[in-house]
Amino acid sequence: MKSDLLKDLLEENDNKIIYLIMDGLGGLPREPLGLTELETARTPNLDALAREGICGLLDPVSPGITPGSGPGHLALFGYDPQEFIIGRGVLSALGIGFQLTEKDVAARLNFCTIDENGLVVDRRAGRISTELNQKLVEKIRSHVQLPKKVEFFLETVSEHRAVLILRGEGLGGHINDTDPQETGKAPLEPRGSDPASQKTAEIVKIFLNQVKEILKDEHPANFVLARGFAKYVPLPTMKQRYGLKAFAIAQYPMYRGLARLVGMTVPEKPANYQAMWQQLQDNYSQYDFFFIHFKKTDSSGEDGDFDRKVKIIEEIDEWVGQLKTLNPAVIVVTGDHSTPSVLKSHSWHPVPALLWSPYARPDSVTQFGERYCANGYMGRMATKHLIILALANALRLKKFGA
Amino acid sequence: MKSDLLKDLLEENDNKIIYLIMDGLGGLPREPLGLTELETARTPNLDALAREGICGLLDPVSPGITPGSGPGHLALFGYDPQEFIIGRGVLSALGIGFQLTEKDVAARLNFCTIDENGLVVDRRAGRISTELNQKLVEKIRSHVQLPKKVEFFLETVSEHRAVLILRGEGLGGHINDTDPQETGKAPLEPRGSDPASQKTAEIVKIFLNQVKEILKDEHPANFVLARGFAKYVPLPTMKQRYGLKAFAIAQYPMYRGLARLVGMTVPEKPANYQAMWQQLQDNYSQYDFFFIHFKKTDSSGEDGDFDRKVKIIEEIDEWVGQLKTLNPAVIVVTGDHSTPSVLKSHSWHPVPALLWSPYARPDSVTQFGERYCANGYMGRMATKHLIILALANALRLKKFGA
Repeated sequence: MKSDLLKDLLEENDNKIIYLIMDGLGGLPREPLGLTELETARTPNLDALAREGICGLLDPVSPGITPGSGPGHLALFGYDPQEFIIGRGVLSALGIGFQLTEKDVAARLNFCTIDENGLVVDRRAGRISTELNQKLVEKIRSHVQLPKKVEFFLETVSEHRAVLILRGEGLGGHINDTDPQETGKAPLEPRGSDPASQKTAEIVKIFLNQVKEILKDEHPANFVLARGFAKYVPLPTMKQRYGLKAFAIAQYPMYRGLARLVGMTVPEKPANYQAMWQQLQDNYSQYDFFFIHFKKTDSSGEDGDFDRKVKIIEEIDEWVGQLKTLNPAVIVVTGDHSTPSVLKSHSWHPVPALLWSPYARPDSVTQFGERYCANGYMGRMATKHLIILALANALRLKKFGA
Repeated sequence: MKSDLLKDLLEENDNKIIYLIMDGLGGLPREPLGLTELETARTPNLDALAREGICGLLDPVSPGITPGSGPGHLALFGYDPQEFIIGRGVLSALGIGFQLTEKDVAARLNFCTIDENGLVVDRRAGRISTELNQKLVEKIRSHVQLPKKVEFFLETVSEHRAVLILRGEGLGGHINDTDPQETGKAPLEPRGSDPASQKTAEIVKIFLNQVKEILKDEHPANFVLARGFAKYVPLPTMKQRYGLKAFAIAQYPMYRGLARLVGMTVPEKPANYQAMWQQLQDNYSQYDFFFIHFKKTDSSGEDGDFDRKVKIIEEIDEWVGQLKTLNPAVIVVTGDHSTPSVLKSHSWHPVPALLWSPYARPDSVTQFGERYCANGYMGRMATKHLIILALANALRLKKFGA
């Protein structure tokens, strides 16, 4: 539903909504015509929720599109990922847990190798080690002098990857990549496409010129290429859009950052599953919506480890067993995208989802798995609609029209 | 997905996509509670593809809308038929195999009967024979003199129907129908709604005045009514939108024309199924995408011949048996719309579809038929998404967002 229309329907109450997100949940069979990871896992608690609730298959972006973590989570939070585009620089900063402010423009930097004529000979500087990256970042930090009133932060990500954040009044993020995308070419000049971005591009130029000087005797990483400039603009919050005070329980920086982007409260990083449960219990009465993020379903999928993904799903199923003791109005279990072990990567396959609530109209699905979900009441729909369905089942939406 | 966002995701490789389109494939049971044409047909090859791939039901335009051939095929090629509207004049010209150029404005002409006061008494001139139509077209061709720099082409379609094409620099197609839609009224004057179309409308007026003079002693077809003026504007090509070099194998002019409209290579008309297979084999290595069009499922449906439609589906199933020997990455089988024999016409019913690929996540569907497709993974979706799903399964799309 259009968000301006939705606003008029919101009704606040004490009903709680829990979103349990298994990153990269969707999978594929290991053998043709076999079972997926989720279908293979023994999941009595998830199956009970599926039996009592409704199931479906979700498209995070649209059919056939493989989502990154950013678009996948925005869709879960009800933000159309084709409308709310988060720049790569901002996502990279979120990914390392950097706390962005509204004065910040962020970009991905890659260490690279240039020759004596300034032409790029290796766009990744031979994938230098993270340790060397840290050493070079330290060197750049201590030597670069930007015009006053602009602060910069340079942070190692891993190997040849780093993030640059410029902080100042009136900066703009509409700046082209300086990465020429192929070797044998000179890095491109940064240019802004509006006055604020032009001003910012001038500062980027100063930064890059100094970096070139600072790194000139290094090898192989003697320069940097910048990509994905983006200004940090927090989105309308979940409180504004849905009237939900939202709380995030997540161990990994990227998901904590994404939760902050939509105005969730993000407490300290929980050390383990038990700590996650403790955070949920301790904050349960203070919030309306709980985003609980489990990462390892995705990492095991990315590693191509079918059996580990199965085992992780089974562990999370045990954790799920406690949820109903809190007496929530709605429990949602799904993922931000699929990460089939056989593909070792995110994929376009729709994500299995279940929504449990006393008011969900039970369908014929009795087991949580991709092929069973295909026959559920939720049908196949865009992930962004899920939050509306959750609000409805929490009796937080009034009638539309008389 | 929005086409500007999609562009950044395209990745080229050698994986081939085959679209096998049975025109008007969807059907209805002959008896209540009976089986449809497709469900009745013995289709071991299609069933095998359905078992190994994913199935669904497609809405070419949107639920409840009966599509013409134009919108139905545009949706298959991934062009939203509510956004890309092809004028009737252009479709009529495509339908008779007329090769339009970017200088052309086309319109449907109907021979009609007017009385001594110039009022329309029969909008179809008693549905004159195609032979008489051809005679009159010949007469008009040899007598009409248009201002130089504008060429015209007049072509018989059938019975009272013909197509007019005006060719010249700077013509416009925004011209009203001259058909008053009811008898007892005078034909309307053609008027253009922008300068180019105004200029063109003046030429249409000259053409119509001369035709009135040329046909004044004919009976019953003593004038013509024009409808559906439209300028031929080729669409962005499939190469531009999807990075796909596309090849069309189709026997009928309309579908060859629609394929040309989106930039496909269209070889000579294949004489029979064997020739279609030969064209596919001969051009397989040179192209990425193959549109293979079978017409007779639609014509048998239009004729109300249930048994013939069943038999044709069985013949095509045999043809399908060879496809996997080419080792394609993706095989899609569906139709451009439904043509149930019991309705003897196109209909709004969603169209059964299957997508076979090693990366399709197998669903529980084991037979290709409307009611089985309703339980497939593809779910029910708009036809325009299908091409994106095909690109994904051919591993031709990068991740969206980080």
